[in-house]
Amino acid sequence: MCRIAAYTGPAIPLENIIVRPRHSLLTQSQHANEAKLAVNGDGFGISWYGQDERPGLYRDVLPAWADDNLTNLCRMVRSHLFIAHIRASTVGETSRANCHPFALGRWSFCHNGQIPHFGRIKRRMMAALPDALFDARRGTTDSEMIFLTMQAHGLDTDPAAAIAATLRDIGPEDASGPVKLTCVFSDGQGLFAFRHASSGDSPTLYLSGVLDNGGRAVASEPLCGMTDRWTALPCNMLCRITAEGVQTEEIGPSRAAALQAAE
Amino acid sequence: MCRIAAYTGPAIPLENIIVRPRHSLLTQSQHANEAKLAVNGDGFGISWYGQDERPGLYRDVLPAWADDNLTNLCRMVRSHLFIAHIRASTVGETSRANCHPFALGRWSFCHNGQIPHFGRIKRRMMAALPDALFDARRGTTDSEMIFLTMQAHGLDTDPAAAIAATLRDIGPEDASGPVKLTCVFSDGQGLFAFRHASSGDSPTLYLSGVLDNGGRAVASEPLCGMTDRWTALPCNMLCRITAEGVQTEEIGPSRAAALQAAE
Amino acid sequence: MCRIAAYTGPAIPLENIIVRPRHSLLTQSQHANEAKLAVNGDGFGISWYGQDERPGLYRDVLPAWADDNLTNLCRMVRSHLFIAHIRASTVGETSRANCHPFALGRWSFCHNGQIPHFGRIKRRMMAALPDALFDARRGTTDSEMIFLTMQAHGLDTDPAAAIAATLRDIGPEDASGPVKLTCVFSDGQGLFAFRHASSGDSPTLYLSGVLDNGGRAVASEPLCGMTDRWTALPCNMLCRITAEGVQTEEIGPSRAAALQAAE
Amino acid sequence: MCRIAAYTGPAIPLENIIVRPRHSLLTQSQHANEAKLAVNGDGFGISWYGQDERPGLYRDVLPAWADDNLTNLCRMVRSHLFIAHIRASTVGETSRANCHPFALGRWSFCHNGQIPHFGRIKRRMMAALPDALFDARRGTTDSEMIFLTMQAHGLDTDPAAAIAATLRDIGPEDASGPVKLTCVFSDGQGLFAFRHASSGDSPTLYLSGVLDNGGRAVASEPLCGMTDRWTALPCNMLCRITAEGVQTEEIGPSRAAALQAAE
Repeated sequence: MCRIAAYTGPAIPLENIIVRPRHSLLTQSQHANEAKLAVNGDGFGISWYGQDERPGLYRDVLPAWADDNLTNLCRMVRSHLFIAHIRASTVGETSRANCHPFALGRWSFCHNGQIPHFGRIKRRMMAALPDALFDARRGTTDSEMIFLTMQAHGLDTDPAAAIAATLRDIGPEDASGPVKLTCVFSDGQGLFAFRHASSGDSPTLYLSGVLDNGGRAVASEPLCGMTDRWTALPCNMLCRITAEGVQTEEIGPSRAAALQAAE
Repeated sequence: MCRIAAYTGPAIPLENIIVRPRHSLLTQSQHANEAKLAVNGDGFGISWYGQDERPGLYRDVLPAWADDNLTNLCRMVRSHLFIAHIRASTVGETSRANCHPFALGRWSFCHNGQIPHFGRIKRRMMAALPDALFDARRGTTDSEMIFLTMQAHGLDTDPAAAIAATLRDIGPEDASGPVKLTCVFSDGQGLFAFRHASSGDSPTLYLSGVLDNGGRAVASEPLCGMTDRWTALPCNMLCRITAEGVQTEEIGPSRAAALQAAE
Repeated sequence: MCRIAAYTGPAIPLENIIVRPRHSLLTQSQHANEAKLAVNGDGFGISWYGQDERPGLYRDVLPAWADDNLTNLCRMVRSHLFIAHIRASTVGETSRANCHPFALGRWSFCHNGQIPHFGRIKRRMMAALPDALFDARRGTTDSEMIFLTMQAHGLDTDPAAAIAATLRDIGPEDASGPVKLTCVFSDGQGLFAFRHASSGDSPTLYLSGVLDNGGRAVASEPLCGMTDRWTALPCNMLCRITAEGVQTEEIGPSRAAALQAAE
Repeated sequence: MCRIAAYTGPAIPLENIIVRPRHSLLTQSQHANEAKLAVNGDGFGISWYGQDERPGLYRDVLPAWADDNLTNLCRMVRSHLFIAHIRASTVGETSRANCHPFALGRWSFCHNGQIPHFGRIKRRMMAALPDALFDARRGTTDSEMIFLTMQAHGLDTDPAAAIAATLRDIGPEDASGPVKLTCVFSDGQGLFAFRHASSGDSPTLYLSGVLDNGGRAVASEPLCGMTDRWTALPCNMLCRITAEGVQTEEIGPSRAAALQAAE
């Protein structure tokens, strides 16, 4: 269980989202309200967009609250579009390569949730990746595999279709438990958010109304004092946030079925 | 608020105290019961004694639960006397130099608590250190200063007197709050434990009865399943634990007064 | 290009090999004589054997010379059998998962050299691994893949055959350059050393004569002052060192051919 | 012996100085030409100025060449004024608190050189610091002490006088060897550079002519391909570089004497 916060709008210092709000991501890293684990100390990461097409990426395995470099970076760097993630690993090792966001080309991606049967399907998912994406894998998480698989399924051209195809690859839940995905990702143009659970509920994700400065944010838990109009994002709804507004698109069984029929 | 566990007795793998007990120090690092903060993720350290007079020292700034090196070390290294500490810093930076235990010569020392008025007396305490101890200071904590000051006051020859003199140097509490010290330290021969609060209560410390293997332990919270006879250590009582048993010595106002008279 | 040192014999502090010799591994990390790169600052690692069947493992990404934990460990830990490695990565990221030695079950393994065409054969080698070994992969190096492939080919029962079969899997060199392997590994009983180059010469490896204390060592460069009888290990010769002495076995084309015929 | 590079002029990505030049600071970290040690792997740091009065600060103990975060930061962050430093510690521990630059308020400061008799004068220099500067000390280096002492001597109002007074505090060299200071520092307005040696020569520092983009740089070794007009900075000459040009001021014995007379 991790915590996510992301923003798009007029360029602001990263700290305005990550550090300063009363219930900021940094605060959530020590005192999460809506997570299974109250502590998220297994590394963190930020991706942010600037003049370069590729995002900047800063990840480390320290607890976010202990890293002076992070607070300095958040104070100095301004961006119109960024994603931040703090990690609480339930299993597996803490390493930079396993910290979110993952970045490839102009995309960056972070994830909260899990595929309980990942051990069973990992080889198949690996084998299905094209060479370039196979080579791009650096860590051992299901999250990175989801990101690479979405790229293999055409994330560049049709994000909704890429998600639907990835869910199909992941397949139905088994006795090990429900598949839960709460993802936030970006291509540098828009900010995408998506929740899905094969059964039960996926980790929370809230979409802000228009912030005081005209921007918009998504976060695992509402960031206090910026807007009181946070709305919980429903499951199976791909949300794309830009300066112009918010577009949503359902990615339900029908979409997946339609895709399957089209093949 | 930090968590401490220490052991002396027949040589055992460090993991028998630090990793394996049901409520081990590693478990406490994520789910402390009796600490103000449930999380202790701001570094950790171990000192252990072997053939060399000087203890081994292993400290790092990662959360203890995320460090494979630590679990490997605890599985492989056997010792008859060791101290482990996990840190939850209330203020100040996370760095190896600020991780406990501190080691100097044959001594190692760890601390849970604080001197709220440390900022006011730091310069005076620094100035009072002999050159060798002044030079030995590596970090910025009150804990390291307490350790060095105890050494300046003859820790080698009379630990109880060294503590009393150090408490006198620290002076009475002021409006910033009560002085609280819960220390565990060793010279490689015995394991010392001491609690003190200028008012109110100091962080907990429990002394085990004789463990299954004939050893003894002290810990911030009882380590389950090893003995049911854990007793809370009273304040102002210096406790020295060896293979032969447990000696206690009161370090109350009378002792401090006696010392003062003797000067 | 990396540096390796390993020892088997009467239990000694690790520092006697890694830190103390005039041209110790730690010295070599800053001033290698026979390596392409004079600096080996991209992480280090130690595996050592004790009472447990599985080796202890300590790896980190700091330069070896900067890590107090390492020097403490080397001073305190005694072992009858250990391997140390300092890494100078020519390509790829510095992470703990990419530091040598790699350990699995009772085996630990380190490597100096490279498979220049690894990018071309990686997927095939991955796909050939049994599930348990596939899941055990943590990093991105050719070295770890060699180790896992050796295990897949029966390292437990016939190390020489496992090496021959692994060389066959790696296949002939191509235009990207010669395959070079200089490996040191152990199962906790013996210390194995092996050099191979598809053409030209493989990174150096020297075998000590009997050391002053009756033990034996292998090292990328002779460790001064311990014995003057260091002999360069020839290529294609598997060397197994135990308390009883040194056994050698040729692993040449004939052996590989014999294996092939037997299938 | 460390390596320094700094820039002021039109805002550019940090990488244009730190990563991209043929003989960039990153290259120098592995292959320095004019340093005693060819390797500078004991940490690094960057300070850079933006909208905030206080500089951003990014420091870590990894070798600079191994840190993906650093290359990402250098690619994304643009600044009109920044200082970068890579460290090769001759003595003492590697920790973030000992990495340059040091920052306090709007100043940042880095140093190459040493005070061989620092051990002898450290207590006196510590004691002479005003409380706020005493409390600001985080590490154990002579470099940080020089910076704090310069602040105590009015760096804010008269940098040349602050340097002269600091040199007086450091005092004459003794048998332990010559005092050598090569400093680069900034208040966010100008870029200051200064070399001094009590005897012999101080570590090199070169001042660029006007770069292709109209900016100026100083560096321990000329950064190739940006300008061929690098000039070695003479000793005892304080150099202040701004958009308008370069001002120099001698800080010789006469200046120090004048200051002394004025007191």
